Amino acid sequence: MTITFADIRQAAERIFPYAHRTPVLTNASLNQKTGAQVFLKCENFQKVGAFKFRGACNAVYSLRDEESTRGVATHSSGNHAQALALAAKIRGIPAYIVMPNNAPTVKKDAVAGYGGIITFCEPTLAARESTLAEVVGKTGAAVVHPYNDERVIAGQGTAALELLEDVPDLDVIIAPVGGGGLLSGAAIAATEFKKGIRVIAGEPEMADDAFRSMQAGKIIPSENPKTIADGLLTSLGDLTFPIIQQRVEQIVTVSEAGIIETMKYVWERAKIIIEPSSAVALGVLWEKKIDLSGLNVGVIISGGNVDLGKLPWR
Amino acid sequence: MTITFADIRQAAERIFPYAHRTPVLTNASLNQKTGAQVFLKCENFQKVGAFKFRGACNAVYSLRDEESTRGVATHSSGNHAQALALAAKIRGIPAYIVMPNNAPTVKKDAVAGYGGIITFCEPTLAARESTLAEVVGKTGAAVVHPYNDERVIAGQGTAALELLEDVPDLDVIIAPVGGGGLLSGAAIAATEFKKGIRVIAGEPEMADDAFRSMQAGKIIPSENPKTIADGLLTSLGDLTFPIIQQRVEQIVTVSEAGIIETMKYVWERAKIIIEPSSAVALGVLWEKKIDLSGLNVGVIISGGNVDLGKLPWR
Repeated sequence: MTITFADIRQAAERIFPYAHRTPVLTNASLNQKTGAQVFLKCENFQKVGAFKFRGACNAVYSLRDEESTRGVATHSSGNHAQALALAAKIRGIPAYIVMPNNAPTVKKDAVAGYGGIITFCEPTLAARESTLAEVVGKTGAAVVHPYNDERVIAGQGTAALELLEDVPDLDVIIAPVGGGGLLSGAAIAATEFKKGIRVIAGEPEMADDAFRSMQAGKIIPSENPKTIADGLLTSLGDLTFPIIQQRVEQIVTVSEAGIIETMKYVWERAKIIIEPSSAVALGVLWEKKIDLSGLNVGVIISGGNVDLGKLPWR
Repeated sequence: MTITFADIRQAAERIFPYAHRTPVLTNASLNQKTGAQVFLKCENFQKVGAFKFRGACNAVYSLRDEESTRGVATHSSGNHAQALALAAKIRGIPAYIVMPNNAPTVKKDAVAGYGGIITFCEPTLAARESTLAEVVGKTGAAVVHPYNDERVIAGQGTAALELLEDVPDLDVIIAPVGGGGLLSGAAIAATEFKKGIRVIAGEPEMADDAFRSMQAGKIIPSENPKTIADGLLTSLGDLTFPIIQQRVEQIVTVSEAGIIETMKYVWERAKIIIEPSSAVALGVLWEKKIDLSGLNVGVIISGGNVDLGKLPWR
């Protein structure tokens, strides 16, 4: 199944009443520092504090009324779980969330706060999957994968669509890559909106499976990666990878130090809270492994969910 | 000399080419928490990260060409010094800044980074004033006081003017009060823009000299106050106090714990960096000593300059 630009436009209409149209911010210091004209698409201001609400909302509102009443389900302990719970709450249907029993309390509370019905399981992938299968067997809920799902990919693409509507002069769009939902959606939206635009991904050096997958021409799974960018630990999916191969110019890796420096700089100068995964995308400009000077560069700030009690400086 | 609404409109025109028209943000969680519809006028996104740029810029561009060439001068170690240095740099004139020799390196660097010419002095008020007098004697520069100056007050008032232009339905405007430059300018702008609008100030409980001045009917100087809201340590001026007496409904004090809780909540939920002084204004809504529920409340977020290495939690 191919995801088209029309799917992204339809997603934009579908989520319009529920998602924020987030602002695009600029910052003179950041331009000076990077040598580019940088446009920040602020998904940190999105509902649940991350772009994930777009895809979850599109998936929830893509369901026919009769199937929607059985609810939606996923296994996730991150932003996708919160996003799905909130989207389901808005539509008035149940969201069943399978979470590892060692998930941080703050994440459990967030999902529960949005009305998600949590089932805990052992913290292994096998346990997550079998528990999710059980939940679905009992409830008949529709599974919404965090990224390897057409509806989710189309939903995430709306962030890039809005960015280009606001700043049509972009030469480049940069997004972070984890499972590839945001990146693949953004790549479709951008390359269809504007022929010749360059789409580049930022990936942590310490979790460079997408970089290696592009080199190898096949999905290389992420194996126990360790990076501060905890939103980017997952491997590519069989839906996202081909889109990325086809439409993304290159994946640029960013060091842990670069992620932290970029994040702190943005907090200090742009006065917005961005999470490490967002700093990975901006880190491509910060570390200057590739030359983007003089260009108009849109960067998708994926989110702003950070534990303020555990900051990566002093 | 009376500062009129026309002065504020003129200031708005004067600073238009140089200052940001900062966005007004809303946040669903904050509305729910406070029971009001809250509109944040984000001066943390202003140049130098604080509203102070407005007043400094208005003062600098109010100078006639021939007097401007001798430059401007002030004694300050805070945002006003940076703001004056930047405004002068933009106009291409010198800014002489007198700073105590124990000012934090980061503040010295910031002023120097904007091209300010720093003269150090002993860290006493007497030394600051005599050193400033010397500098002015030598250079003929025009002194721009941080708040007790008509041009500065009119400039600061433009933040409230823009807020009301964007959200005319406001019932209340809240600003923090230190020396009263922002508060008095906002009070003139708001009450002239919209008859009957309520103007309320937030002040740290631990630096409540404005609160006590209003009670006493005369300026009671601030004596060695200790609060995390380090932008609000100064006493009212003889220009700002009468305006506040005439146009501000009341001054509400906010506890240190309330300031910190509010600040952290805004960082976590609204994903913007606000400094403690801004949290003092919002703290009026947070602590609910007065009932503003159901009202449209504009809050001037004064700035976002915070040392990220010294945060007031864990």
